[in-house]
Amino acid sequence: MMETLIKEITADQDFSNLRAIVISAEGPVFSAGHNLKELKSELGKAQYEKVFSLATKLMLSIINSPVPIIAKVDGLAAAAGCQLIAQCDITICSEESQFSTPGANFGIFCSTPGIALARCVPKMVALHMLLTGNPISSKEAKESGLVSKVVSKDKLDEEVDKICNAILLKSRSVIELGKKFYYKQVQTDIKNAYAMGERQMVDNVGMKDGQEGILSFAEKRKPVWSS
Amino acid sequence: MMETLIKEITADQDFSNLRAIVISAEGPVFSAGHNLKELKSELGKAQYEKVFSLATKLMLSIINSPVPIIAKVDGLAAAAGCQLIAQCDITICSEESQFSTPGANFGIFCSTPGIALARCVPKMVALHMLLTGNPISSKEAKESGLVSKVVSKDKLDEEVDKICNAILLKSRSVIELGKKFYYKQVQTDIKNAYAMGERQMVDNVGMKDGQEGILSFAEKRKPVWSS
Amino acid sequence: MMETLIKEITADQDFSNLRAIVISAEGPVFSAGHNLKELKSELGKAQYEKVFSLATKLMLSIINSPVPIIAKVDGLAAAAGCQLIAQCDITICSEESQFSTPGANFGIFCSTPGIALARCVPKMVALHMLLTGNPISSKEAKESGLVSKVVSKDKLDEEVDKICNAILLKSRSVIELGKKFYYKQVQTDIKNAYAMGERQMVDNVGMKDGQEGILSFAEKRKPVWSS
Repeated sequence: MMETLIKEITADQDFSNLRAIVISAEGPVFSAGHNLKELKSELGKAQYEKVFSLATKLMLSIINSPVPIIAKVDGLAAAAGCQLIAQCDITICSEESQFSTPGANFGIFCSTPGIALARCVPKMVALHMLLTGNPISSKEAKESGLVSKVVSKDKLDEEVDKICNAILLKSRSVIELGKKFYYKQVQTDIKNAYAMGERQMVDNVGMKDGQEGILSFAEKRKPVWSS
Repeated sequence: MMETLIKEITADQDFSNLRAIVISAEGPVFSAGHNLKELKSELGKAQYEKVFSLATKLMLSIINSPVPIIAKVDGLAAAAGCQLIAQCDITICSEESQFSTPGANFGIFCSTPGIALARCVPKMVALHMLLTGNPISSKEAKESGLVSKVVSKDKLDEEVDKICNAILLKSRSVIELGKKFYYKQVQTDIKNAYAMGERQMVDNVGMKDGQEGILSFAEKRKPVWSS
Repeated sequence: MMETLIKEITADQDFSNLRAIVISAEGPVFSAGHNLKELKSELGKAQYEKVFSLATKLMLSIINSPVPIIAKVDGLAAAAGCQLIAQCDITICSEESQFSTPGANFGIFCSTPGIALARCVPKMVALHMLLTGNPISSKEAKESGLVSKVVSKDKLDEEVDKICNAILLKSRSVIELGKKFYYKQVQTDIKNAYAMGERQMVDNVGMKDGQEGILSFAEKRKPVWSS
């Protein structure tokens, strides 16, 4: 599953018609995370290392993808499944969805899910989830920042389409540059971030699609992106 | 506009009667951010550099101001306008206010607004705003931490006055020291922050207004600040 | 009081039957923070240094405790009292509870409370609290991430028991490893966090209680922890 996700996320990433990736699931469970049976002692340390190295590769492939990656959740996202949706750029879920990091119940603390979780929600929510293993509702997920939006089950596709359409209206290279910069600046101190940001804005304005955007605005017409 | 804001923020900063700065606007738009017409290609790279260098200077002048800077928003704060209010120390807005970072619609990704935004709201909110360009309501802004408080339009001045009055009751030098330390500690690891914090508290207690505060508390009377 | 708290938090920390620590209070005030009378000028700088060095030691003892530390708040947590609950791993409060950092009213800015606060709540909430000194309600505390959950006064013990029972069902050594890793990873950049996380997960799977958890899951039985 992880190999497939990595392959699908990276395969067409330089194909200009790829503009966004939506990760969804069938059935009542979005993802329950790792298959614990793949971690049995008889399989040995090399197997554990392979599993968690793949998981890291998957998470970094989401950050490094030039296009936005959107999780569409309708059901339970647990453990590394919760990590997956927390690592996406945008997550939309149905009201029925739930989120949990119950690894410690099975002797495996959700340490890596906690990495993505801690970068989405307040400490008091993250540690409550990690230490108790109890799920939170879609409402709590929205309130704490774990998801971008909650909609009723029958509006889920519509909402995700709305986001994809908003992305489609923009230049691919501008979205790529913007997403890349976001993950870079968020990890540095604010003074350095603004110093990098100045150069970023100057570069963006100098881009073909930067100038086309500015011109189309001045001329009150729709932009025609080169990308 | 940016030059005026920088001038007004820094001009009287050592004047002891200056205790807080309120940034407000007239009309239905608080600020729509940069004027894209100032970024046309015929104006050249030196012009873009000037614009974004000024923007950084403005943002850092807010952080470095010895007095709290409060945004009073009644309307739309978009792009660098959204950055401006996110960079303030406190933001109060009316129920009708909206916030957006729609730069990518015009080929210029809101990369620098994203710097201030990412330090106020959860990732799932920031990236949704940046990648779709869609506005959020005052209610969503409050829930996600972009503003300190939402009040009805007719209570906006009253609420801002309440905050200014709360600041006026305190010592100017204590507020200055506290604001400065906040922005310093928030960027370092917690162990280092507490090490710096110990020294900060000892220095604060040793200040004339620190001792006056403690004495007035013990003597159950109003403090008389030297600053 | 601080010496007693440090002693009680650290005394039995290697005793395997200790599984969680609950910090609570009697009366309408959970904690009003430092006693300002201990900071009078005639007591001298060495006294101030002792007070704030102890406060740091107390905060770090919470982070370094191998077991989760839960604050049960029913009343006002102010200044260093607010810092204390913000530094805990999980905080549960009653609807009547309030939280404030009013130090600047008494000439002593809540700089060190701000360290814990800034790592729980959005900047717009933290600075509003610190600069005005005004309290926030339990509802606002929940919405901004300062507490994990708000319950009615008569459900407070039940809720805390629920959390403790959830922790009791897990392996002590797994909880210890998970808590320790959380505070480590949260302070580093995401790439490094995932690199550390890979090793952490491999180590966890290799632990006796890691394998017992996986086996019990596969065999559909309750785990029997060695720890």
